[in-house]
Amino acid sequence: MSALSGRALGFVGIGRMGAPMCRHLAAAGAKLRLFNRTRAAADALAAALPGITVAGSPKEAARDAEATFINVSDTPAVEAVLLGESGVLAGLKSGGIVIDMGTTAVTPTRRFAAAVEAKGGGYVDAPVSGGVVGAEAASLSIMAGARPDDFARVKPLLERLGRTITHCGGVGAGQVAKIANQMIVGLTIAAVAEAFALSRRAGVDPGLVRQAIMGGFAQSRILELHGERMVTGSFEPGGRAGLQRKDIAQALELAGEVGIELPSTKANLALWDRMIAQGFAELDHSGLYKIYEG
Amino acid sequence: MSALSGRALGFVGIGRMGAPMCRHLAAAGAKLRLFNRTRAAADALAAALPGITVAGSPKEAARDAEATFINVSDTPAVEAVLLGESGVLAGLKSGGIVIDMGTTAVTPTRRFAAAVEAKGGGYVDAPVSGGVVGAEAASLSIMAGARPDDFARVKPLLERLGRTITHCGGVGAGQVAKIANQMIVGLTIAAVAEAFALSRRAGVDPGLVRQAIMGGFAQSRILELHGERMVTGSFEPGGRAGLQRKDIAQALELAGEVGIELPSTKANLALWDRMIAQGFAELDHSGLYKIYEG
Repeated sequence: MSALSGRALGFVGIGRMGAPMCRHLAAAGAKLRLFNRTRAAADALAAALPGITVAGSPKEAARDAEATFINVSDTPAVEAVLLGESGVLAGLKSGGIVIDMGTTAVTPTRRFAAAVEAKGGGYVDAPVSGGVVGAEAASLSIMAGARPDDFARVKPLLERLGRTITHCGGVGAGQVAKIANQMIVGLTIAAVAEAFALSRRAGVDPGLVRQAIMGGFAQSRILELHGERMVTGSFEPGGRAGLQRKDIAQALELAGEVGIELPSTKANLALWDRMIAQGFAELDHSGLYKIYEG
Repeated sequence: MSALSGRALGFVGIGRMGAPMCRHLAAAGAKLRLFNRTRAAADALAAALPGITVAGSPKEAARDAEATFINVSDTPAVEAVLLGESGVLAGLKSGGIVIDMGTTAVTPTRRFAAAVEAKGGGYVDAPVSGGVVGAEAASLSIMAGARPDDFARVKPLLERLGRTITHCGGVGAGQVAKIANQMIVGLTIAAVAEAFALSRRAGVDPGLVRQAIMGGFAQSRILELHGERMVTGSFEPGGRAGLQRKDIAQALELAGEVGIELPSTKANLALWDRMIAQGFAELDHSGLYKIYEG
């Protein structure tokens, strides 16, 4: 019998990431109560799996739940489903834990946690890397920020969803790690794009350059995957440029709050702005390569 | 008996990279004639290995050689030992090949090749990645630019020195690939440094961030090796910041020549300048992290 058998869990937000997570938790025997803005998606999932019921509000999804997952699109959406009327906080029992799996700004995250803790609950920020493919394969990298006890309690749940679960520190630390991740991804894409664009302009095939340098210090998953997309000109997303831009802007916002200058990141934001201004917001972020053409 | 047995080769420049290369070639049975500015180093190597003699000039080292390696510090040094009075070109026999293993500017490389080809010779630019450790283990990545026939002739020699030998295109293509490599290295170091500096300033341990994101899209050898150095504050070189700065400046010089703007690379140059202005030119390039402190 699974360790999760019979545990009551709330789940708010069943998108392309949330739905496979629900499946993994249900498969492990958890009793899920779902809320989704578009109810039909929740109904369909509940019909397909055992132990799932559908709630009329985030509050109802969270009621009596040991833990309630939030998996919505952005910081204002987290605020609405958590603190709004009929929000998760209104339904939270003492000792209940809120787990935010989304990429949410750091300072609001700490404010959300304070509100939850004031009601006797615990808060875990647990953003992920690995995308829809990782969510479906339960192979996500999960970066968690939480009080140690809260982390210990939710770890068995997170282990159903990801392969690497790292406790990065107190509340907000998971979001900081996610920002660091997105910064490195965005800046490395620009590095590869500029190196390939210069090569091509100097008359050398970027595909051969990629092959020549892959085994050395320039090696990265970005060079491997996104570099290949630049070589073949295949820019279907994947990770959309518009979202990458949002993440870089969020990094610079946090940098402003904590008083640090990040010149590379600032230069990087201007590149995504240029890409988006050229009408490429919906392309994969590797399509940044296109702004160096022509 | 080795494929190189008895082949007469010139070798100009026996530094920390050149000396182990000579050992590998001699071990494979090549007859080497060495020239080094400081003669004592050449004498010592010749005394220690069979089939090695010492020449009084680059011209003498190249005389009757099937191929002559050049492994000197920078573009002006290549020009001096190749085109100077008593230079390699003066000793080159028709059909002889010049192999430049150093990191040399692209446009001069093409000019050097033209001079060699005018005398009936061939030119191969073959810069390497992997450092002294790679030279000693014969595990270098070698990026070659050459006419196809010239590349085919020197490939068995290069295979004694490296593990990955990639023919990137005509003369200069190896140098272009090397510049691309150095750009990606320099820009990725800055990406990791800014991500870690922001994390720390936001109260999160960069060591935990590194661990959390290593399995995802942010993965790179830089995050692994140089990121570790940032976490532990160990900045003994390794690759010196002063050299990294030179490589980035060279990339921007080439960009100017071919008429392409590289905003990330330009911003990157300013960071190395700042690091060097703070007195850190002799630190490992991962020490860029220090400019974000305090």
